[in-house]
Amino acid sequence: MANETRELTVELGDRSYPIYIGSGLLARTGQLFAERGFSVKSPVMLVTDASVEGLYAEAVEKALSDSGYKVTTAVVPSGETSKSLEMLDELVGVALQAGLDRRSTVIALGGGVVGDLAGFVAASYMRGVRFVQIPTTILAHDSSVGGKVAVNHRLAKNIIGAFYQPEFVLYDLDTLASLPMREVRAGLSEVIKHGLIWNADFVSWCEDNVERLLGLEPDALGYALYEGCRVKSIVVSRDERENDLRAILNLGHTIGHALEAVAGYGVLAHGEAIAIGMIGSARLATRFGYDSEIEVVTERIFRKFGLPVRIPEGIATEEVMAAMLHDKKFLEGQMVFVVPTAIGSVEIRNDVQIEWVSEIVDGLREGN
Amino acid sequence: MANETRELTVELGDRSYPIYIGSGLLARTGQLFAERGFSVKSPVMLVTDASVEGLYAEAVEKALSDSGYKVTTAVVPSGETSKSLEMLDELVGVALQAGLDRRSTVIALGGGVVGDLAGFVAASYMRGVRFVQIPTTILAHDSSVGGKVAVNHRLAKNIIGAFYQPEFVLYDLDTLASLPMREVRAGLSEVIKHGLIWNADFVSWCEDNVERLLGLEPDALGYALYEGCRVKSIVVSRDERENDLRAILNLGHTIGHALEAVAGYGVLAHGEAIAIGMIGSARLATRFGYDSEIEVVTERIFRKFGLPVRIPEGIATEEVMAAMLHDKKFLEGQMVFVVPTAIGSVEIRNDVQIEWVSEIVDGLREGN
Ligand SMILES: NC(=O)c1ccc[n+]([C@@H]2O[C@H](COP(=O)([O-])OP(=O)(O)OC[C@H]3O[C@@H](n4cnc5c(N)ncnc54)[C@H](O)[C@@H]3O)[C@@H](O)[C@H]2O)c1
Ligand SMILES: NC(=O)c1ccc[n+]([C@@H]2O[C@H](COP(=O)([O-])OP(=O)(O)OC[C@H]3O[C@@H](n4cnc5c(N)ncnc54)[C@H](O)[C@@H]3O)[C@@H](O)[C@H]2O)c1
Ligand SMILES: [Zn+2]
Ligand SMILES: [Zn+2]
Repeated sequence: MANETRELTVELGDRSYPIYIGSGLLARTGQLFAERGFSVKSPVMLVTDASVEGLYAEAVEKALSDSGYKVTTAVVPSGETSKSLEMLDELVGVALQAGLDRRSTVIALGGGVVGDLAGFVAASYMRGVRFVQIPTTILAHDSSVGGKVAVNHRLAKNIIGAFYQPEFVLYDLDTLASLPMREVRAGLSEVIKHGLIWNADFVSWCEDNVERLLGLEPDALGYALYEGCRVKSIVVSRDERENDLRAILNLGHTIGHALEAVAGYGVLAHGEAIAIGMIGSARLATRFGYDSEIEVVTERIFRKFGLPVRIPEGIATEEVMAAMLHDKKFLEGQMVFVVPTAIGSVEIRNDVQIEWVSEIVDGLREGN
Repeated sequence: MANETRELTVELGDRSYPIYIGSGLLARTGQLFAERGFSVKSPVMLVTDASVEGLYAEAVEKALSDSGYKVTTAVVPSGETSKSLEMLDELVGVALQAGLDRRSTVIALGGGVVGDLAGFVAASYMRGVRFVQIPTTILAHDSSVGGKVAVNHRLAKNIIGAFYQPEFVLYDLDTLASLPMREVRAGLSEVIKHGLIWNADFVSWCEDNVERLLGLEPDALGYALYEGCRVKSIVVSRDERENDLRAILNLGHTIGHALEAVAGYGVLAHGEAIAIGMIGSARLATRFGYDSEIEVVTERIFRKFGLPVRIPEGIATEEVMAAMLHDKKFLEGQMVFVVPTAIGSVEIRNDVQIEWVSEIVDGLREGN
């Protein structure tokens, strides 16, 4: 049934929250606010970006005002550069002028950029007000679970932030129809990642359902997003503050983040960069003596989804390696890597040799 | 015995932490780091301001490096304007360049400004690293308890921040010797506030010990800071996130913050502004029919400590009222005030009439 709404709870004790995944959900925003007892006396701020605003802001505004809420919409430019302290400053100004108080709610309507930015605004405005996520990209299934919010610094991505959980997440599949195809593929890369670290059956299912997923068929998409969120939520529930287990979610991200940084933010989409990164990690698995099937399956699935499997031209290995050494995943100067041990399972290794990584990066360059 | 070190635990479950109050403590910083098992592999950032740096930074740096820690000192300009997002950006840059990782520690060495700023850096750098407070002002006894950290926005003070508890607080009384007399008085204003809301005996004791306190006699000062921290810590333990009880700590702050804002930050010291604010609250108590002794004692004690008891010239009542309406203590548009019911006890009222406040502010203007 295509119109079923799936519900999932992210278990985090008194910070637990539900994720609703389905069609026609935007129109239910006001009702969900009322059910939770959010006071209509405290104004709401809706944060969105310039591309999403024209498509979906009105539906959310209407749903809220129909339920008696006063909403102020703040629009930021689309793209990663909006994840900045300048934009935080700006949004806090809007919130103050709109009279947001300690019982107010900040809503993120958009992709991961808007989610991370608005989430950090919610976490720090008056030292924390309510936060609601309405993701409109596939990649944002990832940022909807786990409460990591952040902005970037000129020298590093996601370096200024907090762990801050939303009250609930409203994932309306209808909004995904307007996503550019490139964003669809990039988002699915992170969905597949959740399979690769935890659930081999789901990886097979994704391989078998490439066309349905790329075609945004609601039932397939709803299931895939549910499963992606579910895996992440299991991991996050066991390790909210990223002390140990949560690190497995970084599969492909050490190389991926470095590629993003070197290519210049925006050149490689996040999901594209980590697809290449995951292939790198799979090659590392081969070096450690694990089954070479891992490498074969990993590369094959990303190819099927039309994701890049090689580093674009013009990116030097040394630059990638230098960027990696700035990465916050390097604890006390030691290299920490997530390495697959099979499809559907990974381990954390701190005995990875820098030369191996550098050789693998080199081997992944276009033409090699 | 003047050299006794007093110890107090702020009880916050798994976020509990100790406060050490005594002489000669700076030299023990490295030892305390080592006792807690802070790894020497992760660099430490010492944040201080331009006035404090020349006086005490070296002692802390030496104590740390003698114990094997690598320290980078970041110096910000003295004064309230350093509590800004620009400075957060700058300090994150220093931290990145110094290689601070997720197991690193940020130390605040200075008054409330450095404490609030460095605390927010610690809370948000990599979504939270360890934080240690070394307060060097009397007022900072207040900011050392409760974990409120924040920076200012052009439109409002302390509006961007977090609740973030330190690992421990090292209160070296020797550092207070260099405090300008005005800062001593302003700091004691907040100490007295803790008596006014919770402990009538301590208020009497302060009145009886004005000279010893203003003379910074270690034993009297150590006791007063201990008692101020103790009262605040009882309140904060029962209400970490400022849902109800914690609001009593705002005695004098509604009017006080408005006065600070209107006078222009820095013209009235925080402790001076709230002294006037507390007299305003005592007058409100009289309006509510409580014993007029409250007003008498409150004004008398601040006079004895040489604190301002009237609003300086050139500040219009209307401006103060307008600033008050921007204050985040106004929940859902309702005026909330902390009102004394006796010396040593207060209540939260939401039935204060705006005209009363405006008349009281008017009555407190110089010459009235
Ligand atoms: N917090 C986390 O746990 C977490 C996890 C993964 C990624 N992230 C962050 O997420 C960001 C990337 O997320 P993203 O890929 O969603 O980026 P994004 O928010 O920039 O969205 C991508 C583009 O699609 C547009 N868009 C969004 N929804 C649309 C829709 N429904 N129709 C048409 N266009 C639409 C946006 O305007 C943007 O141009 C990165 O900043 C990354 O750091 C955070
Ligand atoms: N977080 C909280 O709970 C909390 C509570 C109360 C106040 N505050 C904040 O604290 C700030 C005010 O604190 P403050 O009064 O300590 O201000 P401050 O940090 O600006 O210090 C006052 C002045 O004294 C100087 N100074 C500091 N220590 C010195 C020393 N030992 N010798 C000589 N000079 C010294 C400083 O350079 C500064 O010029 C405000 O920003 C206020 O918002 C926070
Ligand atoms: Zn990712
Ligand atoms: Zn205060």
